[in-house]
Amino acid sequence: MADFDLVIRGGTVVTASDTIVCDVGVKDGVIAALGSKLAKGAKEIDATGKLVLPGGIDSHVHVDQLSSSGAYTADTFLSGTRSAMCGGTTGIIPFAAQFKGQSLRKTVEDYHAKADGQAMTDYAFHLIISDPTESVIGQELPALIKDGYTSFKIYLTYDALKLNDRQFLEVLAAARREGAMVMVHAENHDMIAWLSEKLLEFGHTAPKFHRVAHANIAEGEATNRAIALAELVDQPILMVHVSAKEAIERIRAAKARGVKVYAETCPQYLFLTEDDLDKDGFEGAKCMCSPPPRDKDNQEFVWQGLADGTFDVFSSDHAPYRYDSPTGKRVGGADTSFKKVANGVPGLEIRMPMLFSAGVLTGRIDINKFVALCCTNPAKMYGLYPRKGTIAVGADADIAIWDAEKKVTISIDMLHDDMDYTPYEGHEVTGWPIISMVRGAIVWNDGEVLAKPGDGKFLRCDVPATA
Amino acid sequence: MADFDLVIRGGTVVTASDTIVCDVGVKDGVIAALGSKLAKGAKEIDATGKLVLPGGIDSHVHVDQLSSSGAYTADTFLSGTRSAMCGGTTGIIPFAAQFKGQSLRKTVEDYHAKADGQAMTDYAFHLIISDPTESVIGQELPALIKDGYTSFKIYLTYDALKLNDRQFLEVLAAARREGAMVMVHAENHDMIAWLSEKLLEFGHTAPKFHRVAHANIAEGEATNRAIALAELVDQPILMVHVSAKEAIERIRAAKARGVKVYAETCPQYLFLTEDDLDKDGFEGAKCMCSPPPRDKDNQEFVWQGLADGTFDVFSSDHAPYRYDSPTGKRVGGADTSFKKVANGVPGLEIRMPMLFSAGVLTGRIDINKFVALCCTNPAKMYGLYPRKGTIAVGADADIAIWDAEKKVTISIDMLHDDMDYTPYEGHEVTGWPIISMVRGAIVWNDGEVLAKPGDGKFLRCDVPATA
Amino acid sequence: MADFDLVIRGGTVVTASDTIVCDVGVKDGVIAALGSKLAKGAKEIDATGKLVLPGGIDSHVHVDQLSSSGAYTADTFLSGTRSAMCGGTTGIIPFAAQFKGQSLRKTVEDYHAKADGQAMTDYAFHLIISDPTESVIGQELPALIKDGYTSFKIYLTYDALKLNDRQFLEVLAAARREGAMVMVHAENHDMIAWLSEKLLEFGHTAPKFHRVAHANIAEGEATNRAIALAELVDQPILMVHVSAKEAIERIRAAKARGVKVYAETCPQYLFLTEDDLDKDGFEGAKCMCSPPPRDKDNQEFVWQGLADGTFDVFSSDHAPYRYDSPTGKRVGGADTSFKKVANGVPGLEIRMPMLFSAGVLTGRIDINKFVALCCTNPAKMYGLYPRKGTIAVGADADIAIWDAEKKVTISIDMLHDDMDYTPYEGHEVTGWPIISMVRGAIVWNDGEVLAKPGDGKFLRCDVPATA
Amino acid sequence: MADFDLVIRGGTVVTASDTIVCDVGVKDGVIAALGSKLAKGAKEIDATGKLVLPGGIDSHVHVDQLSSSGAYTADTFLSGTRSAMCGGTTGIIPFAAQFKGQSLRKTVEDYHAKADGQAMTDYAFHLIISDPTESVIGQELPALIKDGYTSFKIYLTYDALKLNDRQFLEVLAAARREGAMVMVHAENHDMIAWLSEKLLEFGHTAPKFHRVAHANIAEGEATNRAIALAELVDQPILMVHVSAKEAIERIRAAKARGVKVYAETCPQYLFLTEDDLDKDGFEGAKCMCSPPPRDKDNQEFVWQGLADGTFDVFSSDHAPYRYDSPTGKRVGGADTSFKKVANGVPGLEIRMPMLFSAGVLTGRIDINKFVALCCTNPAKMYGLYPRKGTIAVGADADIAIWDAEKKVTISIDMLHDDMDYTPYEGHEVTGWPIISMVRGAIVWNDGEVLAKPGDGKFLRCDVPATA
Ligand SMILES: [Zn+2]
Ligand SMILES: [Zn+2]
Ligand SMILES: [Zn+2]
Ligand SMILES: [Zn+2]
Ligand SMILES: [Zn+2]
Ligand SMILES: [Zn+2]
Ligand SMILES: [Zn+2]
Ligand SMILES: [Zn+2]
Repeated sequence: MADFDLVIRGGTVVTASDTIVCDVGVKDGVIAALGSKLAKGAKEIDATGKLVLPGGIDSHVHVDQLSSSGAYTADTFLSGTRSAMCGGTTGIIPFAAQFKGQSLRKTVEDYHAKADGQAMTDYAFHLIISDPTESVIGQELPALIKDGYTSFKIYLTYDALKLNDRQFLEVLAAARREGAMVMVHAENHDMIAWLSEKLLEFGHTAPKFHRVAHANIAEGEATNRAIALAELVDQPILMVHVSAKEAIERIRAAKARGVKVYAETCPQYLFLTEDDLDKDGFEGAKCMCSPPPRDKDNQEFVWQGLADGTFDVFSSDHAPYRYDSPTGKRVGGADTSFKKVANGVPGLEIRMPMLFSAGVLTGRIDINKFVALCCTNPAKMYGLYPRKGTIAVGADADIAIWDAEKKVTISIDMLHDDMDYTPYEGHEVTGWPIISMVRGAIVWNDGEVLAKPGDGKFLRCDVPATA
Repeated sequence: MADFDLVIRGGTVVTASDTIVCDVGVKDGVIAALGSKLAKGAKEIDATGKLVLPGGIDSHVHVDQLSSSGAYTADTFLSGTRSAMCGGTTGIIPFAAQFKGQSLRKTVEDYHAKADGQAMTDYAFHLIISDPTESVIGQELPALIKDGYTSFKIYLTYDALKLNDRQFLEVLAAARREGAMVMVHAENHDMIAWLSEKLLEFGHTAPKFHRVAHANIAEGEATNRAIALAELVDQPILMVHVSAKEAIERIRAAKARGVKVYAETCPQYLFLTEDDLDKDGFEGAKCMCSPPPRDKDNQEFVWQGLADGTFDVFSSDHAPYRYDSPTGKRVGGADTSFKKVANGVPGLEIRMPMLFSAGVLTGRIDINKFVALCCTNPAKMYGLYPRKGTIAVGADADIAIWDAEKKVTISIDMLHDDMDYTPYEGHEVTGWPIISMVRGAIVWNDGEVLAKPGDGKFLRCDVPATA
Repeated sequence: MADFDLVIRGGTVVTASDTIVCDVGVKDGVIAALGSKLAKGAKEIDATGKLVLPGGIDSHVHVDQLSSSGAYTADTFLSGTRSAMCGGTTGIIPFAAQFKGQSLRKTVEDYHAKADGQAMTDYAFHLIISDPTESVIGQELPALIKDGYTSFKIYLTYDALKLNDRQFLEVLAAARREGAMVMVHAENHDMIAWLSEKLLEFGHTAPKFHRVAHANIAEGEATNRAIALAELVDQPILMVHVSAKEAIERIRAAKARGVKVYAETCPQYLFLTEDDLDKDGFEGAKCMCSPPPRDKDNQEFVWQGLADGTFDVFSSDHAPYRYDSPTGKRVGGADTSFKKVANGVPGLEIRMPMLFSAGVLTGRIDINKFVALCCTNPAKMYGLYPRKGTIAVGADADIAIWDAEKKVTISIDMLHDDMDYTPYEGHEVTGWPIISMVRGAIVWNDGEVLAKPGDGKFLRCDVPATA
Repeated sequence: MADFDLVIRGGTVVTASDTIVCDVGVKDGVIAALGSKLAKGAKEIDATGKLVLPGGIDSHVHVDQLSSSGAYTADTFLSGTRSAMCGGTTGIIPFAAQFKGQSLRKTVEDYHAKADGQAMTDYAFHLIISDPTESVIGQELPALIKDGYTSFKIYLTYDALKLNDRQFLEVLAAARREGAMVMVHAENHDMIAWLSEKLLEFGHTAPKFHRVAHANIAEGEATNRAIALAELVDQPILMVHVSAKEAIERIRAAKARGVKVYAETCPQYLFLTEDDLDKDGFEGAKCMCSPPPRDKDNQEFVWQGLADGTFDVFSSDHAPYRYDSPTGKRVGGADTSFKKVANGVPGLEIRMPMLFSAGVLTGRIDINKFVALCCTNPAKMYGLYPRKGTIAVGADADIAIWDAEKKVTISIDMLHDDMDYTPYEGHEVTGWPIISMVRGAIVWNDGEVLAKPGDGKFLRCDVPATA
């Protein structure tokens, strides 16, 4: 009888700190051993010359979610997780988004109904808190944290979502009491609203004006404020989708004085610029997200922040709104003003390959940092570690085997989400996962999707060590 | 016939950049000549060995003002200007404070009624804008600016006064259109409210908890936000009564990147500390103001900011609430919680002597910087220059003759306001004005008050060059 | 037949990124497997409830070395490595120190002769370059790098050792050509010389004046200069024994702009202060090292630098000069001036326990950071990784098993070096290694030294990935 | 009999802090009165609509000076002062440059011999100290300071001039004892030497490689080091000809922490860039100076530094080496390598007009700042105030009357130095002095030179208040 259900032989196994050639033995969905000459497995994979990485955790994705603007994500739990695993990501943490007046518990139940029997990878949930009433703060949150929902996102902008400073303080205090992680979308709402109004007064409605309205300074201000509020309460926060050098500088300074602030950035801030919004007609809408892509100088700041430890997490902020759809980019009508375009870009599948190609292969970051940013840190930040996010004995056998030399030209045709475009059409990358597995089961193999809906399971999150 | 109404002979005449021994000739209330051997004056003053300085402009004082808490300043225009001139200050700029729902024009008329026939020195008005409705912004403000009210203060805290970011942006935009100066009281309201609530829950009601509630970080955050909003609109602002190192650092950084932010500090941030709030019973209320006095380390930052040009203006923020009065410190009742104590300390008369003694005589700042901070810059910032704020041909003969060696022990008995205490009781200083004159008329002479109520006139402010 | 020579069962295995409960299987001196239920070993250790850490690498130690002052280290390769392994450190990198006029090759041979047959742990060598002649730079260095001596230390102070900027540039350029790591002792020589001369003129000879002469500003300046020179050449450097906040700030700023500067600090900058130099008579000499211990404020900066990634390496800078010895602290005579006291403190054995106790158990740093600083990073920095510095398949089985609850009071009696004092006499720590092994052989077990002289082998270093 | 020898009527009189319309009365070469309706003068000038500024002090000029490279300045005291006054500058402070081995006293005597009977404006001397022997430091310097030579420049680069850190410390300490100002040419010598050697090895000899050799980082490093050395000694220093953003940042940070560091910049860092060095053949030599012109980004930093108070002094660093001369730019031979080209550009005459046009008229700096930078601050820094540098009663009547609307195209033909080129050929400016006077005597009037050689007198400098 074979000792292992599966042995991956001779690959270069990478963790957030180590790079080692060895075999990986899997039993009952769990990594049972790492060794130089492991006993036989029922199944064997020869990974010689390949990279054996932890499956990625994409901790910022929107699937099967109705946005406050009325747009609806094209991806369901099925297509979202399918796309994820084809790009080396074997776990996602989408949002269960509260609408004002709604109970958080009910919100969570709704999202479970969407996910049940659909997902191909495991998944957990963040809560979006838009209505921090006394009962939400005092009763629902503590109960939900105990049930495994240990992180929540709050917004400082968007009419339907934004909290004021006082509400934010109450959320921070609750998180501190219970031990939870608070994610912050930091842009100054009034600045954006005021700029937008002025732009529209002048008839500036094209997608490129979205970039003008979402000024760097609006992100810098809100980031500074969020850090100050968290510092006051002494509660860790994680700044999501950071794009502006002003924000990066405030985060770096806060870390250097010992404040527990963590930060995330996304592919769109490395690979898109404001010029991508400035295309004929409505085309620029394909690259609209909030915060928006900025200029080359800001891109350099983001790269530097990845290299020097200012950023802890690299996520996709996958927000898949179809280009040619009344529930997608055109939710506000065809050729409408930038204010009514659905905000967000897809990126679940390309997240890791693009960073690998432009970051690791160029030497901007080493491969251990890559694993830390894409796999290990998100798992640690959100209470999924050590079950997820690393290759270690006892961890779930969520593994991606990469061919570091494979050349791929990104196009919508080869992606596995339910979108009708990708903002990275035509981008060329080197390096792509050829096999992905979830709890030891191969779900993506040499171009073939092997998982079935429902193979993915819900993950209760622990209280993060960082919180 | 004498060439001059008055000649001041042989004194050391100081401006914001020059220190020169010469005569000053006054005619018709105006400085008519500076010279080495001026012709005879109808009246002559021998200033040999004395300093001849411009009369001070105190650009941040509260007189005859009802606060939002219901407290009332002890000083009227009479006692306030009397106290000012006895300390070398010959012009003040108090506030005409709008209450919500009130017309600005009506507010201004009310304050004129209080000042008419009362003042002993000249005076102008800042407007406090607490209700920036469309008609206030669109109609009243432009008209008032044309009438000589070219600066306004807005608050980021206090329930009855605070503007949100959007309102602040509208005020900034209006100021930019018309050319006006915007003064900002920068403390994060929600932080203070949240901290106060927590403190009171624990029964922490003593004056010293005022310091805890008004955390440094609340001032730092609001200062950063105010600068960001002003930078967005490209409108100069002046941060008033800056006390915290976090705020000073943000102001310094903004100046270094070319943002037009000006800054003011006050005696209480140089000469009081948080320890002064921590006295038996209600005694600490005597030193309560917002922002509060902080610690020695913060004091050093304030001194360094005065020396290196971070601060442009040194004012008193004279807010004279009597200690033993139901309309003063005890407006919330005897021995009430810190939240209900009237906020503010007096300082009109001691402002210049205390800075002179502790700043100029110690070498921390030179005497030209002293004149710049106390006289010239406030005049320039608020459109009173060159009529006021310097000793130059054509300027009003508002002059103070100082004995740099005079030793004075500050006590409530020797001051000329209508207060029942001074927070600086017993402080010893060297240097005091022995003569003050307004438009050539001697109003304070060797310990004697010579001015009469109504001698002081209203000043229309020009649009400041800096705005 | 047993599958493994040794199995460590059920311990908590820690790497620079992971913390996992599992078994460790060792065969032929190498880690052969990590697993949840490994097959039997010829020998078994029950590590349940214990920490299983990589053996430490102390990459800054002086043993069997004659200093330029004529002092001689008390520790030989025997006693030095013995002390190391009793404190959880299983590999050291001492210096082969060139004297002016000496060939580097000869220097290396001399040090090999000292080490041969003596060491109880493995060891590599850094070269100290004090005489970078053309032949040293052009011929000896490249050959030695190929032979496994891939790092060198240069000094910016000490008469017998200091390089000028031009020499430093030549060393940096050579390092860049060949791929080597340059370590820098950064203090401004002329500042120290000038201050020392002034102090001695005034008769200030006591140990505490060593602290005055080695001013913070001298370290800050030289650190800034070293970074600038390295940045010019685009060659990585590692700042050793950093102590001053001025230096930390320059390093942090350089890292944030992408300069490849690494940094090391040592126990004396966390656990000693300048007050320790200010004792009766000669006693202060026990805590004299360069740079000197500084004040509490600087200590806090060092802690913050450890936490936020400014520091990459934590070493001992073990420089064991006996207190009561004419070749130790008293090399310049009894009760001589501070300029003639032998400079350095011992710390090989206490390095890891003291940081564990004061850093990990208090939550200042997590245990993965502890492993990174003490084990993995030094191995990576100096080309010993992945052979050393981690617990991973294929790595040498250099392992320390820690009892995290063991309480120890540090005293010279319980240490295993050849010193007559420890500067940490009486310090209490929690956590100590109970077993250390080198290549699978247990060398330290429950208080007993099991290794024999010569068990330790010389390690050729690869070109570091970071260089 | 007229009261005044001269009255300038109705001009706008500008000082470093004030801007006032008034008359200026001059008697016996001194400003005797400022007034609104001064009595008649023997001579009268109608300055209505004109600016009446203090005559400029150019505190960094090289005239009749042999450089260490063997080049010789084209300008003598005659032509240099002539050129100065035609551009509104009525006082200069050139250098008396010590060569190694030479007595400072002898150096001073030599320069007096060159200046006697030649100068058209007043002049003082800085000493260049290249050989700080014990007798120079201990005896010559103190005596010369007493005789009115109260400032000295030291170099951190140039083989014939550079001091090492120890020598620099001795100079700083001597300056502190006696009260003198130390000017520093801050570039890292070894960096430049090393880069130059590498460039020449590759045959990179063209003028543009001068810019490469004098890297920004070399200026940044040396500036930081100079500040650190001065801070150690607690002696003020003035960083001359600052050009690099790295240097500006270090100066700004030092000022913000209270270090007494002053800074100077020059026209070449505002109006030339590195592209000006990159011209066909030898042409680029016309714009070679040390430090070199840098790029647009650095120019912006210089402008910002002028606006925010980082710079105290704006000088020309006039170093007039003819283009087509074997004692000028071609001192190393025709078409030689950049290392042998004479370093320096002329600028005495255009200094003030170019800054006025590009700085004041554009609003980058106000006119008071302009006067401070060009007139008042240099006089204060070097002990010439209040005799020089301002328009005030008792000051020398050194005055320039400017037509702020005059348009001038700069060309070598219209300048009054003895050069054969100007690097600013073809630059257009608005604003030029139409009358200059020295001690009340008109020396330049509407395009005509009225001064005679020897009209200018030597000025003994007081110990600067700042020193
Ligand atoms: Zn968001
Ligand atoms: Zn999102
Ligand atoms: Zn206020
Ligand atoms: Zn106030
Ligand atoms: Zn060292
Ligand atoms: Zn050492
Ligand atoms: Zn120079
Ligand atoms: Zn020069």
